[in-house]
Amino acid sequence: MTRLSVLRHACRGLRVPPSQPTRSGAPVFGSAKRCPSLGLAGNRAMLRCASTTPTSASSMVNKYSKEQEGAEIGYEKCVSDVLERTRESLVALQRDDPALHPVLAIIQSGEDDGLLEVNRKMAGKIGLNVAQICLTKDCTEDEIVDELSKLNEDPRVRGVYLHLAPALLTGRVISTLAPEKDVDGVADLNMGRLVRGDPSEGFVPAEAMAVMEVLESHGVSSEGQTVVLVGADGAVKVALRCLMERRGVVTLNGHKSSESLQEQVKKADAVVLLGAGPAEVPPTWLKPGAAVIRCDSALTSDDHDAERTSQNGLAHLTAAYRMQNVVLGSCRWLREQQYQDWSLRLLKLQPLNPVPSDIQISRAQTPKSVQQLAQEIGLLPGELEPYGRNKAKVRLSLLERLQAQPDGNLVLVAGITPTPLGEGKSTVTIGLVQALSAHLKLNSFACLRQPSQGPTFGVKGGAAGGGYAQVIPMEEFNLHLTGDIHAITAANNLVAAAIDARMLHEATQSDKALFNRLVPSVNGVRKFSPIQISRLRRLGLSTTEPASLTAEEVRAFVRLDLDPSKLTWQRVVDTNDRFLRKITVGQASTEKGHSRETGFDIAVASEIMAILALADGLGDMRVRLARMVVGTSRSGQPITAEDLGVSGALAVLMKDAIKPTLMQTLEGTPVFVHAGPFANIAHGNSSVLADKLALKLVGRDGFVVTEAGFGADIGMEKFFSIKCRASGLRPSAVVLVATVRALKMHGGGPNVSAGSPLPREYIDENLSLVTGGCHSNLRKQIEIAHLFGVPVVVALNVFKTDTAAEIALVCRLALECGARAAVPCHHWALGGRGSVELARAVKEASAAPSHFQFLYETEMPIVEKIRTIAQKVYGADDIALSPQAEAEIQTYEQQGYRSLPICMAKTHLSLSHMPDKKGAPTGFTLPIRTVRASIGAGFIYPLVGTMSTMPGLPTRPCFYDIDLDPVTEEITGLF
Amino acid sequence: MTRLSVLRHACRGLRVPPSQPTRSGAPVFGSAKRCPSLGLAGNRAMLRCASTTPTSASSMVNKYSKEQEGAEIGYEKCVSDVLERTRESLVALQRDDPALHPVLAIIQSGEDDGLLEVNRKMAGKIGLNVAQICLTKDCTEDEIVDELSKLNEDPRVRGVYLHLAPALLTGRVISTLAPEKDVDGVADLNMGRLVRGDPSEGFVPAEAMAVMEVLESHGVSSEGQTVVLVGADGAVKVALRCLMERRGVVTLNGHKSSESLQEQVKKADAVVLLGAGPAEVPPTWLKPGAAVIRCDSALTSDDHDAERTSQNGLAHLTAAYRMQNVVLGSCRWLREQQYQDWSLRLLKLQPLNPVPSDIQISRAQTPKSVQQLAQEIGLLPGELEPYGRNKAKVRLSLLERLQAQPDGNLVLVAGITPTPLGEGKSTVTIGLVQALSAHLKLNSFACLRQPSQGPTFGVKGGAAGGGYAQVIPMEEFNLHLTGDIHAITAANNLVAAAIDARMLHEATQSDKALFNRLVPSVNGVRKFSPIQISRLRRLGLSTTEPASLTAEEVRAFVRLDLDPSKLTWQRVVDTNDRFLRKITVGQASTEKGHSRETGFDIAVASEIMAILALADGLGDMRVRLARMVVGTSRSGQPITAEDLGVSGALAVLMKDAIKPTLMQTLEGTPVFVHAGPFANIAHGNSSVLADKLALKLVGRDGFVVTEAGFGADIGMEKFFSIKCRASGLRPSAVVLVATVRALKMHGGGPNVSAGSPLPREYIDENLSLVTGGCHSNLRKQIEIAHLFGVPVVVALNVFKTDTAAEIALVCRLALECGARAAVPCHHWALGGRGSVELARAVKEASAAPSHFQFLYETEMPIVEKIRTIAQKVYGADDIALSPQAEAEIQTYEQQGYRSLPICMAKTHLSLSHMPDKKGAPTGFTLPIRTVRASIGAGFIYPLVGTMSTMPGLPTRPCFYDIDLDPVTEEITGLF
Repeated sequence: MTRLSVLRHACRGLRVPPSQPTRSGAPVFGSAKRCPSLGLAGNRAMLRCASTTPTSASSMVNKYSKEQEGAEIGYEKCVSDVLERTRESLVALQRDDPALHPVLAIIQSGEDDGLLEVNRKMAGKIGLNVAQICLTKDCTEDEIVDELSKLNEDPRVRGVYLHLAPALLTGRVISTLAPEKDVDGVADLNMGRLVRGDPSEGFVPAEAMAVMEVLESHGVSSEGQTVVLVGADGAVKVALRCLMERRGVVTLNGHKSSESLQEQVKKADAVVLLGAGPAEVPPTWLKPGAAVIRCDSALTSDDHDAERTSQNGLAHLTAAYRMQNVVLGSCRWLREQQYQDWSLRLLKLQPLNPVPSDIQISRAQTPKSVQQLAQEIGLLPGELEPYGRNKAKVRLSLLERLQAQPDGNLVLVAGITPTPLGEGKSTVTIGLVQALSAHLKLNSFACLRQPSQGPTFGVKGGAAGGGYAQVIPMEEFNLHLTGDIHAITAANNLVAAAIDARMLHEATQSDKALFNRLVPSVNGVRKFSPIQISRLRRLGLSTTEPASLTAEEVRAFVRLDLDPSKLTWQRVVDTNDRFLRKITVGQASTEKGHSRETGFDIAVASEIMAILALADGLGDMRVRLARMVVGTSRSGQPITAEDLGVSGALAVLMKDAIKPTLMQTLEGTPVFVHAGPFANIAHGNSSVLADKLALKLVGRDGFVVTEAGFGADIGMEKFFSIKCRASGLRPSAVVLVATVRALKMHGGGPNVSAGSPLPREYIDENLSLVTGGCHSNLRKQIEIAHLFGVPVVVALNVFKTDTAAEIALVCRLALECGARAAVPCHHWALGGRGSVELARAVKEASAAPSHFQFLYETEMPIVEKIRTIAQKVYGADDIALSPQAEAEIQTYEQQGYRSLPICMAKTHLSLSHMPDKKGAPTGFTLPIRTVRASIGAGFIYPLVGTMSTMPGLPTRPCFYDIDLDPVTEEITGLF
Repeated sequence: MTRLSVLRHACRGLRVPPSQPTRSGAPVFGSAKRCPSLGLAGNRAMLRCASTTPTSASSMVNKYSKEQEGAEIGYEKCVSDVLERTRESLVALQRDDPALHPVLAIIQSGEDDGLLEVNRKMAGKIGLNVAQICLTKDCTEDEIVDELSKLNEDPRVRGVYLHLAPALLTGRVISTLAPEKDVDGVADLNMGRLVRGDPSEGFVPAEAMAVMEVLESHGVSSEGQTVVLVGADGAVKVALRCLMERRGVVTLNGHKSSESLQEQVKKADAVVLLGAGPAEVPPTWLKPGAAVIRCDSALTSDDHDAERTSQNGLAHLTAAYRMQNVVLGSCRWLREQQYQDWSLRLLKLQPLNPVPSDIQISRAQTPKSVQQLAQEIGLLPGELEPYGRNKAKVRLSLLERLQAQPDGNLVLVAGITPTPLGEGKSTVTIGLVQALSAHLKLNSFACLRQPSQGPTFGVKGGAAGGGYAQVIPMEEFNLHLTGDIHAITAANNLVAAAIDARMLHEATQSDKALFNRLVPSVNGVRKFSPIQISRLRRLGLSTTEPASLTAEEVRAFVRLDLDPSKLTWQRVVDTNDRFLRKITVGQASTEKGHSRETGFDIAVASEIMAILALADGLGDMRVRLARMVVGTSRSGQPITAEDLGVSGALAVLMKDAIKPTLMQTLEGTPVFVHAGPFANIAHGNSSVLADKLALKLVGRDGFVVTEAGFGADIGMEKFFSIKCRASGLRPSAVVLVATVRALKMHGGGPNVSAGSPLPREYIDENLSLVTGGCHSNLRKQIEIAHLFGVPVVVALNVFKTDTAAEIALVCRLALECGARAAVPCHHWALGGRGSVELARAVKEASAAPSHFQFLYETEMPIVEKIRTIAQKVYGADDIALSPQAEAEIQTYEQQGYRSLPICMAKTHLSLSHMPDKKGAPTGFTLPIRTVRASIGAGFIYPLVGTMSTMPGLPTRPCFYDIDLDPVTEEITGLF
């Protein structure tokens, strides 16, 4: 049984009024789809109840008739029936979710009274907790609103009973009460729902439920009968009229004049007296057999015994229905906590030809508010942290809530070896989800990397896709987003500042001075902080008492003794600032001559970015940050962020960055943007957490499309070997992006370079170059995917210069090379509609059995792992380690890092280490210049050649064209 | 007449049903206070209408009686009356706000019909715009929801008429419609309000209004009369019953069986036939004189002429009331746009003794959601951009919306010359607003500076106040906040990268190569970008044609020719990283030997921060960013960010940072956090925009408390001379913060320094030291404030070691020194309650007449301005300029910067330039070492001594104690 059907079953016994079909018979609120059971099941429950109670009908008494009819078991039976059904429902709910302990909150003004006592005891009987908030008799509206606001936010509270003096039950109080906790059905929204005939999400006033049951038991519930409602207007009266008239009972509003009232009562089958002390209706007015029901909010005096149902039957029955409403509310709340089917409202695309600029397209589309999008894909409001209108962070608690939900399909988008111009993996990714969600109506999510701001203002421009396959608003995607890269910058540079300051302090202070400062006496007491105790443990010291350390131990504790020549930590900045590649720091006189050479990387090259992409949760991130190695001590020990005492602060700086950011595509489908590590010195994939959250959200049959940087030989290999290994994620298919342009290059076409016009070969049809490219690079990249046992769909990203013959040729050859499918894609010009064929192929490929396997075992020696990748993936004959690389590998193995996976830092412009060698080079030896390690992220990265980790600005950077209109705030010139 | 009363007046004629007092007679929704007029005025209007129409009562016909009664002017008169009243109201509204052009949006399925035509023509007649959205007959629910969502967000649309086939009017459609645009009163919320008897914020269905008027004209509107409602249930029926029964009319729900229905009709005074084609009621059933009213949603055939009211009177009258509802909605919307009184819900404080740590206090209080806070202080939802639950940016459009609203009182918090430990200006600021808002019930706002993250992890810790006077959550205040400092860092460093890259490119390329790259040929066409044209203009070249430039002009255009020795732009980082104070950049081989010495400042020292604090809007910020001078060309010309082509990109990077961030104090009162420029090389005040927004929000009698950095000699002087001058802001009072500790120091007490225990003099009572401090530093600082003509309230921030005699002494002496009031403050231990006396004193001082005046005129020579400050404010005999300073001043005057105000960069630890000289030093000459300029921010800053613009980390930085719980996400160790 699925959880949803468990829930349906659990609350089937609860009695709720039937939902009324709207005029058209169409579902109200769309709820018949989203909450398919309660209203209807309730309908059945009501019938059942009606059929079990008639025997007690005549015994359902009120104080007018009880003198004539002695038996008083009627109310007791009804009350106990309702309670029993309610208790059973609650037990069933708790069987499904043992953590469920719903609370009925009572706000009361003044002392306890009998009614409260009745409610409290009843709650206890069926297993509801009660929270009683006792305000004074003369409490203010503000105080009540205050308490209500807290109860509204408290997730344990599933119902609020406002036991207030009538004067305190003001409009403001009623409007403050959260409708989903309004178990007495007084809130405007619930009243409106009831009036419209759709109580499926609302509450019917408990007292109205009780009166209805009593009327029924008196046989007053059918077409043509008459009931007079006497007394104060209010929610109960309106509710009763709605409920009765829906059955054809005629309801009369009691006249105020005694004479007219007598006229009405004379002909009535029942009279209901509402509110405290309405005008008396003498029994003599009644027609024989007519029932009188008094709804009195106070119990008759001295009847404070909750067990004595007889005298105040209706109050007891009302209380019972109130309990039922609390359980009904709990049931709805639990259902809300469960996986929700999507109700995605798509944004229509009307592509223009010629295709306008990216920012023009982005601006022409109005995105849904991110709250709206979140609701459509089943996120709860509390799981969302909006950043303005168009972006929101999603809390990781979602993973826990949907723990039991099966994951959807994970699809990786990789590419063949690209030209320096890029072949459009991001646009394919976005086009594919637009096609899946908007055109095949399959839930799908794109998981993208957050772009660095450096290139946005440098050469490349934006990275939100392009044409009619974009994330919008593209300027928000490309600029600060939700500040994750800024947080990484802050964290990374705090480590750097801590390193240099520590080296200076160690160089200029005695052991004793260092110790006195590191473990200062506060009010005469010296104490280690937790982070220092953790360092003591790593040093093998078990003490927690500062005074107990020997001089030698003090020395070991206070001196990290970092070797300046072996520092690996660099500073970062999210700007293309080439002059920071190599710098000398510490030249001010205050640094006393301790200058040293170092450099800045672009922020996304920080190890902290790699950690963000691989972390599995806040705890895991904290651990990884702590174990980051920043350098080596003079005695050869690795020194970590934890040794610097900074790891807690790093986690604090990164605590929001760990939450993925939700945005949307041009067609209104969801996108996670999260993390964006380099694809050379790091693994080049978006975050594990974004993928995992998305896999839960799309549901079993849905698709999560995630992208790997560079060509498949790099990004995809690292996706499998590093990201899948760390996370347990398994893709069901790989989409391999190819372009005719890149294939021609691999087939022997002339050089392609940014800024120069494309040679003619790339503009005119040239089938032989295409064939060459397919038979070399495309074939090899497909083979690489097959090494991991995953099916490949080739996506040919069509450019307007591609000819029909070229397109057909690529698709044919790709199949010959082993692709499961090969399709041309037109998302850039057409949006999702242009990628429907791809979406179908991906769906089909994902359904096929997959035999995922790793390329190497982590326990192999580091050298063997490198060799395996070089030979099997790159096609090298062998590897050649420099002496430095050999020494470094030896050090890592000694330090216990042997079993880390490998993250090759190689050019993306060739399968080999030589950017000029296109196609599928063979017969080469891969040189390993040096080997570094990101211990926090958890991989060893051999450098094959020199990697630039800091781009530069060209002579005319993008920023020349970027501006904004100060009035409309519209941005121009971003692309 | 105030705008609000104009609005009341404008809509007084509109006919709305009376609001029903709730049971208690208490105001419903709190609306009687916030929207005081419409419901009640409408009541009157209804009476008026009733008294004018009776003559036409018998002529109000329906198709049952019209054969008997010939006159058909009844409907026409009613319709035209309603329309006339509505038109008049709209004209009155537009008189008040000429920009008001409300739109009635119609969503229709299928072709136009007569009813639509009637509505459209009527709208036109009274001056409403109509937006018609025509969907096909077989349109889907999704399409309707889609269109509705757009209409909901469109501020021009003030009413939506859903002219849909009944099957399309589903629950989901109805729930999508924004209640404030639901002019047909079908939304659940509006129905609930009506049922509860509170239509003051909702809408009554137009058709129900029309029927009521017809019934009235038939004389069917009083106690005891009977009306039978026949036909489909729905909003109109419920509304009619509510409205009629509230007058005592008996309503009967028509029986379905013909026989019973006849019974009902026989006795009825009127019969209302609802919905399309309900069962016929033959005229013969009617009691003589009874009225029959048919509510048919379709017009009788071929009656497409809107003028022919007669045949379809009710449809016309309904349309007229729909128009009235649109105008009523416009009126409410306009009122919402106006200044709203606050309805601040305070957070209760229960201070503990001893006072716990700051983070413990902060965490123990649950802040209101920022949306809630925003609503309480009269912000509209569209003006808020939430960043998570506790922070939100506020849009600057608020200034425009509240343009006509008078400003509140501006109060500046400054201090006497502090000890190195600080004397608590921030806590006084927060304590003061807590006292004003929470205890004196005066609207108040604190405007604080955003703290740098550097000190948070370095020595100082957090800056959110302390004890029971804090901004919460303090960790969010102290960490990334909403990313403004990160944006400044990105913008600042983009300028730096652009400078170095440009110098490299100029050094390595010919004029022609530079020109070809800067003005590239795109598709064969060369074009200057707007930013390049702006450079051409500065060079005196009027051309826009690249080919027309002479070689010399090309050279002038492409070469900024920056003099490396005269670059003033530094990079920044928001970390205490002392090793970056002086560095050499460009040492990588790729930079070809173009290395140079430069340095990093802490991010808040960036000129861009000073600009953020002084900018008046997006346009002004864009202009200031463009004119920032980054260095000088070899020929002595200042080179600006605009010359680098980067100013548009800077504005784009800063476009969100310009919006102040809303947070709250421990007692739930509002706080703006915005900008935080250094108080030495910049002016040390929070932003002009935050102050201006807050002054509008607090209202005429409210208070905005803003803080100036350092002692009053620096922060306050700059507040007056720079911030007030740039913005037009004028404070009504200055709060001068003093502590017994600082006064003792100025009175001759021993040195106070961070990290060392306080000498005994500061712990034991010492009245003579206190007297010395009051007579020197306190007196002088009060005098400085008086130079500007502003009254001073001395706030003695009481520490627990202060004795009663010391406190009394300070207060007495402060009055002797000219303070208007002097009071002890206990906010740290007690929250706002501890500062009530201060709040009263500030209120009183602000009410006194103020005679604000500037200290100097900007047109004075730069040297004279510096001398004026040195002599009048610091008490120097004169100034002594270094030759370098003299030369620099000469350069600035030549470059046209003579009329900028002066921003002295002086130590804050003494009134003089010598940090050790406490009290009120005299007889000294102030040395001016060098003079710099922040041309974008708009001031010249002479350096008196050396200013550190990059703090360092101590041996044991704060970060040792900072950590977070990975499960609860709670942060520990921040203080």
